[in-house]
Amino acid sequence: MSHFQVRTDLALEAREKFEEDNVEIKGVRIEEEMAEEGEIKITNVVIETENGAKVMGKPKGTYITLEAPGMSEQDEDYHREISKQLAKILLKLMPDKKPPVSILVAGLGNREVTPDALGPRVVDNLMITRHIIQEFGKYAFGEEETNAISSIVPGVMAQTGMESMEIVRGVIEETKPDCVIAIDALAARSTKRLGRTIQITDTGINPGSGVGNHRHGLNQESLGIPVIAIGIPTVVDAATIVSDTMQTLIQAMSQSNYLSSLSNSLESLNDAEKYDLIRELLSPSLNTMFVTPKDIDEAIKRLSFTVSEGLNIAFGVA
Amino acid sequence: MSHFQVRTDLALEAREKFEEDNVEIKGVRIEEEMAEEGEIKITNVVIETENGAKVMGKPKGTYITLEAPGMSEQDEDYHREISKQLAKILLKLMPDKKPPVSILVAGLGNREVTPDALGPRVVDNLMITRHIIQEFGKYAFGEEETNAISSIVPGVMAQTGMESMEIVRGVIEETKPDCVIAIDALAARSTKRLGRTIQITDTGINPGSGVGNHRHGLNQESLGIPVIAIGIPTVVDAATIVSDTMQTLIQAMSQSNYLSSLSNSLESLNDAEKYDLIRELLSPSLNTMFVTPKDIDEAIKRLSFTVSEGLNIAFGVA
Amino acid sequence: MSHFQVRTDLALEAREKFEEDNVEIKGVRIEEEMAEEGEIKITNVVIETENGAKVMGKPKGTYITLEAPGMSEQDEDYHREISKQLAKILLKLMPDKKPPVSILVAGLGNREVTPDALGPRVVDNLMITRHIIQEFGKYAFGEEETNAISSIVPGVMAQTGMESMEIVRGVIEETKPDCVIAIDALAARSTKRLGRTIQITDTGINPGSGVGNHRHGLNQESLGIPVIAIGIPTVVDAATIVSDTMQTLIQAMSQSNYLSSLSNSLESLNDAEKYDLIRELLSPSLNTMFVTPKDIDEAIKRLSFTVSEGLNIAFGVA
Amino acid sequence: MSHFQVRTDLALEAREKFEEDNVEIKGVRIEEEMAEEGEIKITNVVIETENGAKVMGKPKGTYITLEAPGMSEQDEDYHREISKQLAKILLKLMPDKKPPVSILVAGLGNREVTPDALGPRVVDNLMITRHIIQEFGKYAFGEEETNAISSIVPGVMAQTGMESMEIVRGVIEETKPDCVIAIDALAARSTKRLGRTIQITDTGINPGSGVGNHRHGLNQESLGIPVIAIGIPTVVDAATIVSDTMQTLIQAMSQSNYLSSLSNSLESLNDAEKYDLIRELLSPSLNTMFVTPKDIDEAIKRLSFTVSEGLNIAFGVA
Repeated sequence: MSHFQVRTDLALEAREKFEEDNVEIKGVRIEEEMAEEGEIKITNVVIETENGAKVMGKPKGTYITLEAPGMSEQDEDYHREISKQLAKILLKLMPDKKPPVSILVAGLGNREVTPDALGPRVVDNLMITRHIIQEFGKYAFGEEETNAISSIVPGVMAQTGMESMEIVRGVIEETKPDCVIAIDALAARSTKRLGRTIQITDTGINPGSGVGNHRHGLNQESLGIPVIAIGIPTVVDAATIVSDTMQTLIQAMSQSNYLSSLSNSLESLNDAEKYDLIRELLSPSLNTMFVTPKDIDEAIKRLSFTVSEGLNIAFGVA
Repeated sequence: MSHFQVRTDLALEAREKFEEDNVEIKGVRIEEEMAEEGEIKITNVVIETENGAKVMGKPKGTYITLEAPGMSEQDEDYHREISKQLAKILLKLMPDKKPPVSILVAGLGNREVTPDALGPRVVDNLMITRHIIQEFGKYAFGEEETNAISSIVPGVMAQTGMESMEIVRGVIEETKPDCVIAIDALAARSTKRLGRTIQITDTGINPGSGVGNHRHGLNQESLGIPVIAIGIPTVVDAATIVSDTMQTLIQAMSQSNYLSSLSNSLESLNDAEKYDLIRELLSPSLNTMFVTPKDIDEAIKRLSFTVSEGLNIAFGVA
Repeated sequence: MSHFQVRTDLALEAREKFEEDNVEIKGVRIEEEMAEEGEIKITNVVIETENGAKVMGKPKGTYITLEAPGMSEQDEDYHREISKQLAKILLKLMPDKKPPVSILVAGLGNREVTPDALGPRVVDNLMITRHIIQEFGKYAFGEEETNAISSIVPGVMAQTGMESMEIVRGVIEETKPDCVIAIDALAARSTKRLGRTIQITDTGINPGSGVGNHRHGLNQESLGIPVIAIGIPTVVDAATIVSDTMQTLIQAMSQSNYLSSLSNSLESLNDAEKYDLIRELLSPSLNTMFVTPKDIDEAIKRLSFTVSEGLNIAFGVA
Repeated sequence: MSHFQVRTDLALEAREKFEEDNVEIKGVRIEEEMAEEGEIKITNVVIETENGAKVMGKPKGTYITLEAPGMSEQDEDYHREISKQLAKILLKLMPDKKPPVSILVAGLGNREVTPDALGPRVVDNLMITRHIIQEFGKYAFGEEETNAISSIVPGVMAQTGMESMEIVRGVIEETKPDCVIAIDALAARSTKRLGRTIQITDTGINPGSGVGNHRHGLNQESLGIPVIAIGIPTVVDAATIVSDTMQTLIQAMSQSNYLSSLSNSLESLNDAEKYDLIRELLSPSLNTMFVTPKDIDEAIKRLSFTVSEGLNIAFGVA
């Protein structure tokens, strides 16, 4: 049953599905390291071939995740150690261009729906410099040249009538930044990842990703310039919860004596039968629902600071 | 399996569980009527005895629900026909006191978590009069005496360190209103009810109800004056979704030929076994999660107008 | 002293300065009418020639103002009669193109500064249709073809690092609307006009106008398509208040016996001397300050509904 | 003319009026010191006698101001050095009671009017502990006993129909804190002080103070427990700007040769005449207006962090 397609925006989770089955994927390379005295786990997933991309269901490129269990908990300086690691990774993924660079930060998502407000809230706390450099020149902030940071919160279709991609592309045409950094709230497969993982990727935002399920990608192909995406999972699709329950049910049954025969029957179903079964179970209304923690407001408030600080450290005025 | 306790704040849904099993509950009276040319269904559930209260899991009193499928959809005047019905019901449930009355409206819930923001958002659009009457006298608005409307948004414990009940009780001691009207977002059992039902009750808000799961009630017992509660379901507990899936699974299996034997085995479990099974399935993290629609921001925006208009029609300046 | 340049975004006020002096301006035509049983005064100022434009300090074009003293006061349906007049004027100023048209509504200004939040708040309540028509075709809403309404809230430079004009121009390039309707909070000369006047003009937004003092215009010249601007004065420049005081002082002095000689001396100053005097008086810090009413939050809330309703009536789904 | 009563909530400014006239006030003691290598100026104004209180127009007590020119400017850690000084002063002014203490922080003012939103915004970033101690006991946070911090944002009368004082008093009756810390935006006399001064006083909030002009005090007399007030000037009354202009005019005239005779005439007016003159000048609508900087949104955002950090340092979990 583990191949049933549940949605995750995390390459890490996409990879894990295969790990469970002890499948090795050709064209996908993984490296792990620990940072900050074991507090932060950093995983590099590099999808190197088209085959890897197909199996993983994600475009070729580098996906780096920062995992720290306490990430969304209260902390005096909003987990500055995580912000620093984020800054390091961002600088590593940046296209090869000597600073100063000009960067458009796009805060994707819906400010009015708490778990989808990460992007807009990150932008609220960014150090914006482009207009000052436009007016006072590139030494406006001192002896060193300063990166030109601009930002846009495109909103969502129900508010604007337009795709985020259309708005961002228009702004790029007008203001010609060197690259885009897109921030978005993600859907995870497991509730345990919510608010505890940051994914940074050089593949941008791709169709179907994000809490709002972007219909068009925001990536180098659609925007014409490199796009780095920063995402944090804040919701699980309601349909995923249901699907997970199915699997837990089967496991639970196989561990209960009185249910083991029953479980065996279920396990003996072939994939088509399982798929039919799940289709019957999924209420269509669940497709428009998400699952999120009750204290998502506090998580979003804190995480948005952690991310904006990462950006400020990487590109801000020294 | 239908007696497994899933959470609902709607008396209507609590009643339905028994309907499914064709059980009649002594001490619970139900009446239905249609209004607005069949567009609005109004159901009165009156819990008349302690026995009824025990079986239903809700205090004695009157629970009136307004159901209208299009309630949260876009409408030029925010469904004024529903606001009017709400006003009528509110006036019917008001304690016997000749106007002018003085009413404290309490907008419960967390403004920062979209599906829990109903109460605070309703208060944003209320016509507030108490301070004007305090300053200019009871004929401040014309020849007729005006009801004195005041309002409080107590926030949630993580923000204030206090129970909503403590704050509201303190405000009552100071300002001596005749009654409280408490607005709160509710948890339903079924996703189909979200944003389509308004419940009005003279029993107030009771422990465990509301999206935020109030630990202490806001009712006549705790506040010392009558409390009318207006609630709209905006979330389903994540655990409820899981439990519902279980039942759908069993039904689905009994309708599939190749699964019928399996289903029979499950059906043959006794209640204790079923309960054990479900307990094993429920991930503890689900208890801190809720399920809500993706467009909850628009629903809350519109519903808050419908409710505040209902209050303005019932008690506002003519 | 009446020719001292104080800032006003209202053509009506620009005109009044000359009226006081009984000066007739060539190339500027004025018509007045009353609507809604004398409740609303509608004034058409048409600047017909370059000379008129130069004298008035505003581009050639039509400026229509709706004045109603109670406009920002509480009203059950947010002054629907004003919304209707606004809709009529908008349709009159629209470029000659048979409906359905596609319109981009730009909500200019800073959502975080209350008197500058009019534009963003109007957009919050608009009926947005473009994305639905894109998906379901032009008969998505019924038998009649529907106008395609989209919207953008570009924010302000300190937030985005970009000019509003750059963002709007980029969005136009991508989405090709037929025209732009730009909403902005304005600066008036007189505190008495705040929240009581709506100006609609086919000249767009021009440099130096709006509460935020746009540095670049949003008009047909800069955007390439017709731009209708809707503005409501919500602030007076602090420097204007000072300048007005000067004049009142002189008048007050000439009416006081014991001060008349003094006043005569002031009146006898020539214009250069007066200008020097005023320059000395104006504290430079006043240039970054504005004057606004203490209850501006309520005015903005109500006015934004009145304007969005006007747009919905003019262009929305019947 | 310097005795004309202009409004200031700062004891420092009230004192300065007399300094200008070289008047020494009996019963008012002043001490100044510099901190943080000259970056922060700390002034203690102690009103020791009823006579001092009468002359100053402020109650007896201690008023400490922190002045730092860059206070509202962008800073990586929101001016932590100022937060630390604020914490030191708060601990000095606290009533004599060994920790742990229980403190109710009241965020006064109107969240919807930017310059009045300081109080509510400070509360947004406080570390709230009371509910955790209520649930898990006084060692909930570790070996040391923790102060119980709760908070309330009472809103303004137009929103609640109640005085802030009524709400805070009710909450005190219910929750019995040891003292109140009230945060409020203030009116200054000089635009130069806006966003650059913090006043901390053990006299609480007194009638007529704050941007919203509280009608009833929040002080030990009205609330029954000690009240420390923290205020930052964010507005100047519009009438004050006018009055200041008057004085500048006279000074300007006396420095211009051609105007000196005129100035002499004005100076020769007696106080009653001057008062009449000013009364004639003041437009009544100015009394409901305030003057505030255009970038007040950024100032409020930053200052609210500086103040909440001060509170967190003084009373938070170590």
